[in-house]
Amino acid sequence: MGEVHGKRRDGLRRLLEEHALDGLLVTNLLNVRYLTGFTGSNAALLVTTDGAVFCTDGRYETVAETQVPDLERVIERDCGLTLAARAKGSTGFESDHVTVDGLKDLTEAAGQELRRAPGLTAELRVVKDETEVEALRMACAAADRALAALIEHGGLRPGRTEREVARALDDGMRDQGAEGPSFATIVAAGAHSAIPHHEPTDAQLKAGDLVKMDFGALVDGYHSDMTRTMVLGRPAGWQTEMYELVAAAQRAGVRALAPDTPLAEVDDAARSVIAAAGRSEQFVHGLGHGVGLEIHEAPALSRAGTGTLAAGMAVTVEPGIYVPGQGGVRIEDTLIVREGAPELLTLTTKELVVV
Amino acid sequence: MGEVHGKRRDGLRRLLEEHALDGLLVTNLLNVRYLTGFTGSNAALLVTTDGAVFCTDGRYETVAETQVPDLERVIERDCGLTLAARAKGSTGFESDHVTVDGLKDLTEAAGQELRRAPGLTAELRVVKDETEVEALRMACAAADRALAALIEHGGLRPGRTEREVARALDDGMRDQGAEGPSFATIVAAGAHSAIPHHEPTDAQLKAGDLVKMDFGALVDGYHSDMTRTMVLGRPAGWQTEMYELVAAAQRAGVRALAPDTPLAEVDDAARSVIAAAGRSEQFVHGLGHGVGLEIHEAPALSRAGTGTLAAGMAVTVEPGIYVPGQGGVRIEDTLIVREGAPELLTLTTKELVVV
Repeated sequence: MGEVHGKRRDGLRRLLEEHALDGLLVTNLLNVRYLTGFTGSNAALLVTTDGAVFCTDGRYETVAETQVPDLERVIERDCGLTLAARAKGSTGFESDHVTVDGLKDLTEAAGQELRRAPGLTAELRVVKDETEVEALRMACAAADRALAALIEHGGLRPGRTEREVARALDDGMRDQGAEGPSFATIVAAGAHSAIPHHEPTDAQLKAGDLVKMDFGALVDGYHSDMTRTMVLGRPAGWQTEMYELVAAAQRAGVRALAPDTPLAEVDDAARSVIAAAGRSEQFVHGLGHGVGLEIHEAPALSRAGTGTLAAGMAVTVEPGIYVPGQGGVRIEDTLIVREGAPELLTLTTKELVVV
Repeated sequence: MGEVHGKRRDGLRRLLEEHALDGLLVTNLLNVRYLTGFTGSNAALLVTTDGAVFCTDGRYETVAETQVPDLERVIERDCGLTLAARAKGSTGFESDHVTVDGLKDLTEAAGQELRRAPGLTAELRVVKDETEVEALRMACAAADRALAALIEHGGLRPGRTEREVARALDDGMRDQGAEGPSFATIVAAGAHSAIPHHEPTDAQLKAGDLVKMDFGALVDGYHSDMTRTMVLGRPAGWQTEMYELVAAAQRAGVRALAPDTPLAEVDDAARSVIAAAGRSEQFVHGLGHGVGLEIHEAPALSRAGTGTLAAGMAVTVEPGIYVPGQGGVRIEDTLIVREGAPELLTLTTKELVVV
């Protein structure tokens, strides 16, 4: 793993050069993890053109020896300030992460002005290397298998509560080796399915319900994200119609995933399918988002998205239609943008499953 | 619940007055939750001397109707900017939460300078009201019961892995109605117990091992935190000695919890017990921290702590001794500072349990 992180730091050094910086003070813990492999809850990293110093506190001294064997390690409680004091030359700080008060303290510790340098590590993180794709693949597989096990064991049936189903999915993902769910699992049955982000309740699933399940697994710090909407028993006409429309929009969104495609264009590819059916008002959110060390990260696939896709980006494609009081459908995959067709990581069928 | 949140907003208005502010833009989501009850993942709140406006995005419109029925609700994706645009008069922003880049955007949206106003809601949050204490009580009880069930069912025995024990504790807390663990559960056996924050591995527990378990439950957004160290079979002399010393330090720390006591003095009460035994080098972290909507929040009970305790604060007291390569002991409770003796929320025995 040391090699992977060394390569990432080299990538960051190329960006330092582009921005005429002698160093970057990395205080966003996820960026520290990305650049070093460190998984504890307090750390900072100073990357310079020809080196790097890592800091964590006494609780993690032993962990850091194992996880970050290849870097100079400083043990101090206040990691950001400690490394700021070692800044030499033109040093950047993560202005998209450091708070207004935090900057005051860092500047004092550095004894010099620090330069705004937002998004440098994010620029690297947006394109996943194969180590990351493999973690995402495992995270998606854990979610696929948990859902398959749920259905196979009859866990999706009238009388069970949303909360019980959510718990079964969470347990199933852990059984598959996941560290846990990648966010609070959504299980929304019947009219609840019309609430885009519904917290599972003690409401029981009933025959005829749409059941929307939005969940994912965490593996090696990487987040998968998948939504499937199923129906308990024979679907009503409106349910099939709603489902087929969302599925068509989702396919259109996936087809639009290709390097160099503008982000807003991907959103539009799916949105226009729903708009053509006169239901654009019922699709109340963006099409998708990047996933990785965070459940929501760049790029945003939305109307407001700027920029283009690139090979290696990991994104969700998740259109939905919601009719308050009646029900809703969302279908979501996690995919890797590739030359040619994207790589689908969430493999559960997108045919309407009748349980 | 509406009444509780209304009282909290009134408390904030008193602080606005003290700071000569006409309003505060609240963008820290935990502060929004504290002041409104909203549990979604995107929101902001503008509290003014005579009102409040709440903003979330379309995904949470229905949830917000239920959770925040008593406030004007605006539905927009970019909540902070939307409410900044409504700022009138001298309006503060959370300079301990808003990033350097974020302030630029907020200022632009507001069309006026915003004033640094760090820690106002935190000042309220540090003293828990009875609704909060009740949630903490339930969170602590879930952890107590999960540990009791683990031991009762023979779950702590040679041959089980650290990871299996951690999973059993997490499942047990969920069985008790917790939303989940309040942080990544630590189970550290044998020499691993000397690592203060050890991630559970596939290492098996062995006869004679110290087993350190640091875990907590999440209930209604509130975090409990408890550490117990047990021994598998007859304890060795060094284990008993280490345990009794930590237990004595922990009792001294708990005894020092009283309104108006300086924070550093509480730390010292426990630390001096360990220092008197000539082992201060082996106690590598602070004595404790506040708990509530965050697992670590104010006040910090450490040598560097400034300020004093107040009735209603929720804190941990968790001294530890760690001897690398050999083993370690930590004993931790969550307590509420009260006039007279503190209220103990984590009720599991602190006698050395021999499993």
